[in-house]
Amino acid sequence: MKILVNGLLIDREEAAVDIEDRGYQFGDGVYEVIRVYNGVLFGLHEHIERLFRSAAEIGITLPYTAEDAEWDLQKLVQENKLTDGGVYIQTTRGKAPRKHQYDKGLEPQTTAYTFSVKKPENEQKQGAAAITAEDKRWLRCDIKSLNLLYNVMIKQKAYEAGAYEAVLIRDGAVTEGTSSNVYAVINGVVRTHPANELILNGITRVKILELINQNGIQLKETPLTEEELRQADEIFISSTTAELIPIVTLDGKPVGSGAPGPVAKKLQEAFQASIQQEIRIQS
Amino acid sequence: MKILVNGLLIDREEAAVDIEDRGYQFGDGVYEVIRVYNGVLFGLHEHIERLFRSAAEIGITLPYTAEDAEWDLQKLVQENKLTDGGVYIQTTRGKAPRKHQYDKGLEPQTTAYTFSVKKPENEQKQGAAAITAEDKRWLRCDIKSLNLLYNVMIKQKAYEAGAYEAVLIRDGAVTEGTSSNVYAVINGVVRTHPANELILNGITRVKILELINQNGIQLKETPLTEEELRQADEIFISSTTAELIPIVTLDGKPVGSGAPGPVAKKLQEAFQASIQQEIRIQS
Repeated sequence: MKILVNGLLIDREEAAVDIEDRGYQFGDGVYEVIRVYNGVLFGLHEHIERLFRSAAEIGITLPYTAEDAEWDLQKLVQENKLTDGGVYIQTTRGKAPRKHQYDKGLEPQTTAYTFSVKKPENEQKQGAAAITAEDKRWLRCDIKSLNLLYNVMIKQKAYEAGAYEAVLIRDGAVTEGTSSNVYAVINGVVRTHPANELILNGITRVKILELINQNGIQLKETPLTEEELRQADEIFISSTTAELIPIVTLDGKPVGSGAPGPVAKKLQEAFQASIQQEIRIQS
Repeated sequence: MKILVNGLLIDREEAAVDIEDRGYQFGDGVYEVIRVYNGVLFGLHEHIERLFRSAAEIGITLPYTAEDAEWDLQKLVQENKLTDGGVYIQTTRGKAPRKHQYDKGLEPQTTAYTFSVKKPENEQKQGAAAITAEDKRWLRCDIKSLNLLYNVMIKQKAYEAGAYEAVLIRDGAVTEGTSSNVYAVINGVVRTHPANELILNGITRVKILELINQNGIQLKETPLTEEELRQADEIFISSTTAELIPIVTLDGKPVGSGAPGPVAKKLQEAFQASIQQEIRIQS
């Protein structure tokens, strides 16, 4: 297995990080997770564009161009003969003696590797359970950074409760999941939090919003209240690895009929079709 | 130079972290910075106690006892012949294929090393500049975790503005600095944010509150409003490495007389005396 370290393909066993890498001491870096279908990096361009945006927001100048990054990740996927799975890429600000402020001349450190993905087919077909939790994260959730501890704590809480995801609620408004975006269907209208500093604007989210529009479904990007969420006809989540999963129980109570609803199922079909279309174009 | 990795002293050059250490991908770990005076780890017991508290709050069971940790850090200081400086210790949840939720059986990874400290004597004597900034951190600032990106962003902003620290303000109330606690003196009363989930309860803060009481100075642990801060007679900050530094300008405007005030100076003297006392006891 090869991994990519600062533009070079090396053996996984050789890859190591310095203890004074600011990624290790401050979570001072950004990342992306990209799904690979049939050897094609799905939404690659959009993911790399977002990586650059995240880096810029925290003052990291990435030491590669978007074209280089796309090329390198494609090479990595080919080298590891990955057909279905994913790619993880992260870049940290670099190595330096520890202090909060940083020198501008640091060399950012990039690591990327491939991994296999177990498609959550059961959850996609039958729906999954979710719990709710208070959103205590920082107020710059639009930055895809390595500061993920609260997400970890709450995802763990969901798993220990036998649920697949936790829906986060800040000041009475639903923001997103710990590693997914959240949608509800109320009287035929899909509702989801607007893409501001309180959520990460998922690449899958952007695709799903397009599909909602293309399928003539009504959409409102306005925050849901907790009450609206609990009385929704349907709830579903999306992410790069989950794709689109209906939520059929929330805090142990059935959502709507307690089974995947018609809007979620329609969008799942449309999403699978869009994957097939991108594979055909890119292959 | 030796560093401590999972209880063993090894050469600095040999120390490396795995790319799938959860500290590197999620900031999933806790840390402490301990000052060393004359070879003595100042407040060692309190720091290790807080490390255990932080770890417990995020569900990490540290693979060592407090006694072991204290012993190992003392050995590290002796091995590196450190007289004045500091020790950094961090423990992460361990290595695992990346997913937010975690298995309970992971082996926590611990790294500790010594470093030199340039005592900020100028700032302590003449005072330092601070700016104000919005506190957008998560709502569990009581946990000393590796999720420090917002602190980094704002400390950098302070440095680029020629200031030593930024005072964070959340919903109109002063919380703390990016790497320090913040105090103001108003009509002879020292005010500082109570130790709840919005601030880190500094080991230096605890010592200073004791000294305030011992010196017959009035103290109120109630949040300061932004208005109160801007009209305070004195402002000062404390941290392990800064000790106690008067803030003499805030956002470019003089604080009180624009020079270190009597309360800050009195507490500086008392703090230096308490360091000398601990050195005498421990040496």
